[in-house]
Amino acid sequence: MISFARGAPAPECLAVELLADCARVAVERDPSVLAYGPGGGYGPLRERLAARHGVAPARVVLTNGGLQGIAFLFEELLSERPGRVLVEAPTYDRPLKLLARLGAEVVPLPMDDEGLDPDALERALADGPATLLYTIPTFQNPSGRTLSAERRRRLVELAAAHDLPVLEDDPYGLVRYEGPAPPSLHELDGGERVIYASSFSKTVAPGLRIGWFVLPEALARRLEARAVSTYISPPFLGQATVEELFARGEFEPNLERIRDLLRVRRDAMLAALERDFGGRATWSRPEGGYFLWAELQTETEPLLARAEEAGVSFVKGADFYPGAAGGGRAARLAFSYEAPSSIGEGVSLLASLA
Amino acid sequence: MISFARGAPAPECLAVELLADCARVAVERDPSVLAYGPGGGYGPLRERLAARHGVAPARVVLTNGGLQGIAFLFEELLSERPGRVLVEAPTYDRPLKLLARLGAEVVPLPMDDEGLDPDALERALADGPATLLYTIPTFQNPSGRTLSAERRRRLVELAAAHDLPVLEDDPYGLVRYEGPAPPSLHELDGGERVIYASSFSKTVAPGLRIGWFVLPEALARRLEARAVSTYISPPFLGQATVEELFARGEFEPNLERIRDLLRVRRDAMLAALERDFGGRATWSRPEGGYFLWAELQTETEPLLARAEEAGVSFVKGADFYPGAAGGGRAARLAFSYEAPSSIGEGVSLLASLA
Repeated sequence: MISFARGAPAPECLAVELLADCARVAVERDPSVLAYGPGGGYGPLRERLAARHGVAPARVVLTNGGLQGIAFLFEELLSERPGRVLVEAPTYDRPLKLLARLGAEVVPLPMDDEGLDPDALERALADGPATLLYTIPTFQNPSGRTLSAERRRRLVELAAAHDLPVLEDDPYGLVRYEGPAPPSLHELDGGERVIYASSFSKTVAPGLRIGWFVLPEALARRLEARAVSTYISPPFLGQATVEELFARGEFEPNLERIRDLLRVRRDAMLAALERDFGGRATWSRPEGGYFLWAELQTETEPLLARAEEAGVSFVKGADFYPGAAGGGRAARLAFSYEAPSSIGEGVSLLASLA
Repeated sequence: MISFARGAPAPECLAVELLADCARVAVERDPSVLAYGPGGGYGPLRERLAARHGVAPARVVLTNGGLQGIAFLFEELLSERPGRVLVEAPTYDRPLKLLARLGAEVVPLPMDDEGLDPDALERALADGPATLLYTIPTFQNPSGRTLSAERRRRLVELAAAHDLPVLEDDPYGLVRYEGPAPPSLHELDGGERVIYASSFSKTVAPGLRIGWFVLPEALARRLEARAVSTYISPPFLGQATVEELFARGEFEPNLERIRDLLRVRRDAMLAALERDFGGRATWSRPEGGYFLWAELQTETEPLLARAEEAGVSFVKGADFYPGAAGGGRAARLAFSYEAPSSIGEGVSLLASLA
């Protein structure tokens, strides 16, 4: 099976020998990683991330993967102030499922090539208050789209005017192949209204399960308390392994290597789409990340069934809309996992079925 | 501070060099630990535990520490069938907090030196159905008590007669210093009504965060689905490290070493209590585990404040009763963390204040 479904790094992206040695040294250097410890994560890595973000370490919380922290935040914010949660449409499907389980009213906001439509956000806010805006402004999952700098400023102004908490989910921002990075919402806002979330799943290794959050200090304490009451402390071994990677000065070179590996995969997919779908589909052209979003002229649910039978998979667009209310002819195509040659082959296969 | 509060292994119990090398080899041997994978845990360790329990691997689920799995199970069972949850009084405080957050009606059942009183269980069941019995039958947290073999049989019969699901939490069972082990409830029941839970926190290292559950297959699937929707996959690095420890034949020798280290600590605490509290307190005499339970002639809440000021800590008994409705003169004394000489000193200090 050629997988355009897996939003995961290709096996070649994982620095096996390096991380194996970092894990060994992490334990030997600091045996406290084998003990219970702070619910908010491994101290040295919290301090490092805090320095990178220019905040106090008490404002950084490391969770058992990013999704776990998103779940904690949804629970925490919705229990305090039940209400509407605004999301991009389409958006990452797993948070949608968490919100559905919590019984939240989810309000989808339309996007275009520049990301979330700020006029739609303004209209939604005119309808009444909201508990949270959940957004992935850079190389969005599933669309690969990036919110323009101008829209970022407008979004932060709207959030301030309406006292709207924002969760900026940014696991892909560092996986940039070209072009200048726009400022994060968190930077533009100053970090009191916009919570910043990221992870090492796309930049080091997903199996290590490390998400991190930068929050106002009071909310960081509540997130940490929820972590303690759920799992006492997060798994330190992976966190200390990544800290050792940073301490050796190997995080950036490894990230550059991953960027190089994935850039050619993105290019292979764009070239194959042009070759096989030119004139009968449109697609996003992300400057980074793991995915692109294709809008076809056919329904993607039945296409997916035929495709999987033929040996190629993707995620159908409807999975990324609350209540599956959209995306019927769309597909999320991950270019991150397969080798470039398989990408060309997979797109050909899809084109023969679409 | 001399800590009788920490229910954690002494630093000497952690096999630092050995686990560091197991972590390195675990990654090198199987780079898939760095990737996303099954929500129910690292395959080889699931298979090993399944073989130890004589069940199919699909019935074993590894979670991010035992407490996380207990939280999932509480949510799963209470969402399906809201109702009363029966617990021992006293019992482990963290599950009580999870149940309180879920709004469960918690029914405390009294214990004596032989563990949970089965007559009290029978009376509680006569009052109406219950969603679950949560029990720690061996070297119980906080009391150190062990349910007698005869009561185990009676409990399993009562559960069968009333169709009562049971969660047998057994993190301490393998940490036995002397005497024969009674059969687990899970073994007596056959494993369809009694869910078995344990962890490697007390037998290898708590920082690795590995709980495991043996469940009926349908419930195992639900637990795994909840894990996937919360954190995609659990942290494999620690799980693969423990699998490597087993593969080298080092789990049992390491456990024997931990037993030897902790047995002398238990003995030191029993001797110090006899010396300093003889005639003015009673306490449990566990054949294993991490704790004993002392009933003093004074209130332990004000004692704790004085003790912490003087440099010794414990957990007051009331923390282990739902609604703090008991244990006012009791204390959980963990002998697992401090060196034997500090244990003697800490008990003397306590005696001078009590």
